[in-house]
Amino acid sequence: MAARKKAPAGPPRGRAGKAAKKAPVAAGDVQARNRKLDGSTVDLIRKTASGVHDEIRAHKKPDLAFPVRSLKNVSYSQNTGYFEMGRHKKVRTLTVNTVKSFAQTLRMMGLSKELVESNDFATKRDAYYQSKNWEEARFDDQTESDTVMDDIEALFSVQGLSREQLRFVPDEHGGAVAGRLVVLDPDRETGEVERIDCTRFGSGAYSIPSSVEQLSFETDAKFILAIETGGVFQRLQSHKFWQTANCILVSMAGVPTRATRRFIRKLSDECRLPVYAFVDCDPYGISNIYRTLKVGSGNAAHLSQFFCVPQTRYLGVTPQDILDYRLPTHPLQDVDVKRARDALKNDPFFKVHKPWQVAIDQLLKMGVRAEQQALAKWGLNYVIDEYLPAKLANPSQFLP
Amino acid sequence: MAARKKAPAGPPRGRAGKAAKKAPVAAGDVQARNRKLDGSTVDLIRKTASGVHDEIRAHKKPDLAFPVRSLKNVSYSQNTGYFEMGRHKKVRTLTVNTVKSFAQTLRMMGLSKELVESNDFATKRDAYYQSKNWEEARFDDQTESDTVMDDIEALFSVQGLSREQLRFVPDEHGGAVAGRLVVLDPDRETGEVERIDCTRFGSGAYSIPSSVEQLSFETDAKFILAIETGGVFQRLQSHKFWQTANCILVSMAGVPTRATRRFIRKLSDECRLPVYAFVDCDPYGISNIYRTLKVGSGNAAHLSQFFCVPQTRYLGVTPQDILDYRLPTHPLQDVDVKRARDALKNDPFFKVHKPWQVAIDQLLKMGVRAEQQALAKWGLNYVIDEYLPAKLANPSQFLP
Repeated sequence: MAARKKAPAGPPRGRAGKAAKKAPVAAGDVQARNRKLDGSTVDLIRKTASGVHDEIRAHKKPDLAFPVRSLKNVSYSQNTGYFEMGRHKKVRTLTVNTVKSFAQTLRMMGLSKELVESNDFATKRDAYYQSKNWEEARFDDQTESDTVMDDIEALFSVQGLSREQLRFVPDEHGGAVAGRLVVLDPDRETGEVERIDCTRFGSGAYSIPSSVEQLSFETDAKFILAIETGGVFQRLQSHKFWQTANCILVSMAGVPTRATRRFIRKLSDECRLPVYAFVDCDPYGISNIYRTLKVGSGNAAHLSQFFCVPQTRYLGVTPQDILDYRLPTHPLQDVDVKRARDALKNDPFFKVHKPWQVAIDQLLKMGVRAEQQALAKWGLNYVIDEYLPAKLANPSQFLP
Repeated sequence: MAARKKAPAGPPRGRAGKAAKKAPVAAGDVQARNRKLDGSTVDLIRKTASGVHDEIRAHKKPDLAFPVRSLKNVSYSQNTGYFEMGRHKKVRTLTVNTVKSFAQTLRMMGLSKELVESNDFATKRDAYYQSKNWEEARFDDQTESDTVMDDIEALFSVQGLSREQLRFVPDEHGGAVAGRLVVLDPDRETGEVERIDCTRFGSGAYSIPSSVEQLSFETDAKFILAIETGGVFQRLQSHKFWQTANCILVSMAGVPTRATRRFIRKLSDECRLPVYAFVDCDPYGISNIYRTLKVGSGNAAHLSQFFCVPQTRYLGVTPQDILDYRLPTHPLQDVDVKRARDALKNDPFFKVHKPWQVAIDQLLKMGVRAEQQALAKWGLNYVIDEYLPAKLANPSQFLP
């Protein structure tokens, strides 16, 4: 039962051994592009600040206009493939009442400028504590500094700059990576490039850093497999599934963090690799994990252009898999049913894709859900020997 | 403000560059020891099953005695340094009423034997789904199979075998590691040893696998720094603090997982390295994160002998640091006060260590808590340039 059932079949086998070289975007190009982006970031901050300064000197009232960050200001573009922010803006004018938040916004931009210039970074929490030395402009609560940072991020996103380019990085852990990939990471101070070969970590893996903008890649893999659970990732990694299937494995560990999403997006874009998602068949796996990975989330649409991975397709577990593979199931809870109905009724993504409406309807009618590890009913390595090879033989069948 | 204040001072500087070799326990020895343990595991399972079989054939009623897993059956031993399980047992006798759980227990042991023999592994969830093919012995709910697995684990822990040696591995993600360390990991199938140099991950890190029993280490580091937050870990890693301070950094990301705790324990034991914990100064950081890392937790005392790290000492942030470094604070919430009072009154660990009683009393009197990132008030890299060097100059001052 624990033993394998038969020899692996399915997708073409990759060459065994080390990840071979293929560098669609060279490390030097990435560094040059990042230096250019850093220049634009500093220019934009300087321009914004000068504008305010000039207005004040001219005895006018300066203002700053930020895109509205809310579901009402979001649309789903089939063209770009992700949630996009609309044109609504909120204008903050310098008055007696707004002087503190106005000053805080400018100091926060100033911090970003310093960080870019010193090639350093700060988390949201770091930025909050930094402000404790800003005297009257200090924040009393981290929710206040988070809001200001989100506003600045939204403002600069209109110019194509992400929060990471402003050097504000997430506090959260990145996902784990293994497989046919070499990550190139230039040293912060010397610029010397470290080559990180993701075929060489034994049963362990490469842990994605908080910010991935400086990375470039070499790979001959055919696709990226984004996996929901640590358990399935560890199984595929320990059994070197990436070697057999010639791919790159990424563990999302639930809803993927910003760093994980950005990493997958950048890797997929720069190496032109398809991304396949392998998650639990339940409304959470479909409408939270998969939907967030692919098109972003409604209340953070200003992030989508950088963080979502519109080229992702849904390998499984599908509602039809539950029948085809006679998987053990759990009944859908009320919260699952509500989440599925919400997706059908209100989610711009699912409303556009007919195959998803059919699949979610099918799940609701069956009234059950199944975890990806349910495949272990047929043997612990059934997922490696049977399920994934069968699926990977027909990527055109994947849900959109 | 974001720039460094002055040159690093404090602990002796390590040699720059790659982690040098020092292999207190050679990879071959670890493999030989693991093969021996595998032999004992299979023998024990066989002996237990034969005992039951013989009783049945002699028309007697077989029974299995499991250690009681509860706080009432736990003591804190200053000698070993961790929570220990007492001698209370619950006896499960084969009767008409217990036949199903009796059979499930034996099948679960059988699964473990198969896993050891095929050098494979299963998570709790895998094991649950495997049982779906055990006909009448299948589990209806994962809580049932988890309980049986915990019982078996407790039973074998008395013989010095951990759950990982039974090949049951956690589903959860391991922590991230960077610094002066080479991890040696033999391939599951070929036994060929992969050398993983944790100085070579750029801004990323080494992600600890679910099971670490097969690993061995080479290092010339002077200590292990176990860090609560991903943000501080990323700062220390990006600025290569491990090079300046000659150490190994481990990100716990909150309460450390089993794999992370076991990794630190094994690394510290085999390389005789002190472990210093760097966490938030609040009752959660002290009594949940630090206490769990050091002595284990009350309701899982059967794990302590494998998972706790009794040699850990508390570097900071201490209540006294809040005063000495004039840190920004948050008021203690009711839940914090309750947790701190519980620790003083009921926790066998804190009841034994007077310096902790003084420190927790001080925190309660001050009525505030401080996060480790609060040091960013004095500059983002103050933690690297001032705080840690000052602390590391006097490890004898660390809390026990």
